[in-house]
Amino acid sequence: MVKQERALRTRNALLTAAGEVFSREGYRAASLTVISGNVGVSSGALHFHFPTKLDLAAAVEEAAAARLRSIVEHCERHEGPGGSVQLVIDASYQVVERLAQDPVLRAGFELGETMERAGGTGKVCDLWQRWVVSLLRHAQEAGGLRPDVVPDHLASVVVAMTAGLAALGRRDAHWPSRATLTSFWLLMLPQVTAAETPPTCVVHGHDSAAEEL
Amino acid sequence: MVKQERALRTRNALLTAAGEVFSREGYRAASLTVISGNVGVSSGALHFHFPTKLDLAAAVEEAAAARLRSIVEHCERHEGPGGSVQLVIDASYQVVERLAQDPVLRAGFELGETMERAGGTGKVCDLWQRWVVSLLRHAQEAGGLRPDVVPDHLASVVVAMTAGLAALGRRDAHWPSRATLTSFWLLMLPQVTAAETPPTCVVHGHDSAAEEL
Repeated sequence: MVKQERALRTRNALLTAAGEVFSREGYRAASLTVISGNVGVSSGALHFHFPTKLDLAAAVEEAAAARLRSIVEHCERHEGPGGSVQLVIDASYQVVERLAQDPVLRAGFELGETMERAGGTGKVCDLWQRWVVSLLRHAQEAGGLRPDVVPDHLASVVVAMTAGLAALGRRDAHWPSRATLTSFWLLMLPQVTAAETPPTCVVHGHDSAAEEL
Repeated sequence: MVKQERALRTRNALLTAAGEVFSREGYRAASLTVISGNVGVSSGALHFHFPTKLDLAAAVEEAAAARLRSIVEHCERHEGPGGSVQLVIDASYQVVERLAQDPVLRAGFELGETMERAGGTGKVCDLWQRWVVSLLRHAQEAGGLRPDVVPDHLASVVVAMTAGLAALGRRDAHWPSRATLTSFWLLMLPQVTAAETPPTCVVHGHDSAAEEL
């Protein structure tokens, strides 16, 4: 049992180290020796957990997808009066904040962009888009969007905005910021919403998010 | 003279090949042997034009910046009745279309994101942001923006949107599309503009752009 716990801890440490190196260097340039060295384990230990580099990258993507799902579920549990549009806003703030802090989530977004040739599926970004599309379609059915807004088009804009903050954040950490996201939502919302209680840029349940996620 | 022309042709072919490989593989993973091989010249010829990999990347960034300047100048020459905001819209369409087609411009945006550790300056993206900021400040002075719009904030949103379409486009070529950009502008414009002749998403002088750029 103690042995299993230690193995799990090593696995998680390897995922975090891999997230940092993939995010900084890119998938192709990332060195497995650097990743195992940063955790203080042997190459053999790395290969025990992840037989190939592609297995490691797939595990980082899966871990990032799990974190995204946890953000989404957290927002759904704290749903405010703004309905589905508010959920998308809340989650977008969480995603952008976590992108700035969490190398695994950041790598997940980036691996999706660059790993296709290596067999990757772009899981994290696709997951994010599917969730935003589904919520915005629901918002339109519930009368929460103006009738002329096409939910899938709005979802593409939201996903492109998130991806842009993630990409610019690699070069300059000020980019994945609440301020730019707030400018975006403040400009978009009046054209988007038809709700009686309009969505806001105050993130519901935000204070407790750090502990729960 | 003939010799100079041939040297210039080789240099340009190397820049295009480097743009393709940097854009596909990333700066760190890119192979100089692959780049010279794709052009059909020796490694020695590559080193004659670009003594180091960093010199080559800097030249790609410089070529990308020149293409961005040419887009901007083209839009300025074809300025329509919508004023500075219209110029930003027109240029954003040109940038997104060129990102989908032109490996040098694409690499320029990406090198800026990932090359900081290698001494890069992120020229292309910075240039784009400075130009958008300057035009939107001008628009506000001329009464073309609603008084509550902060030009620098709007510029950040526009730049993040462009960078997002560029980043997503690496994985899926449908992303840097006119459709998503049109959704973005249609939702933003009513909150942004105060002009009597409101800007539109029709790109002025667009038909002639392909030849001129």
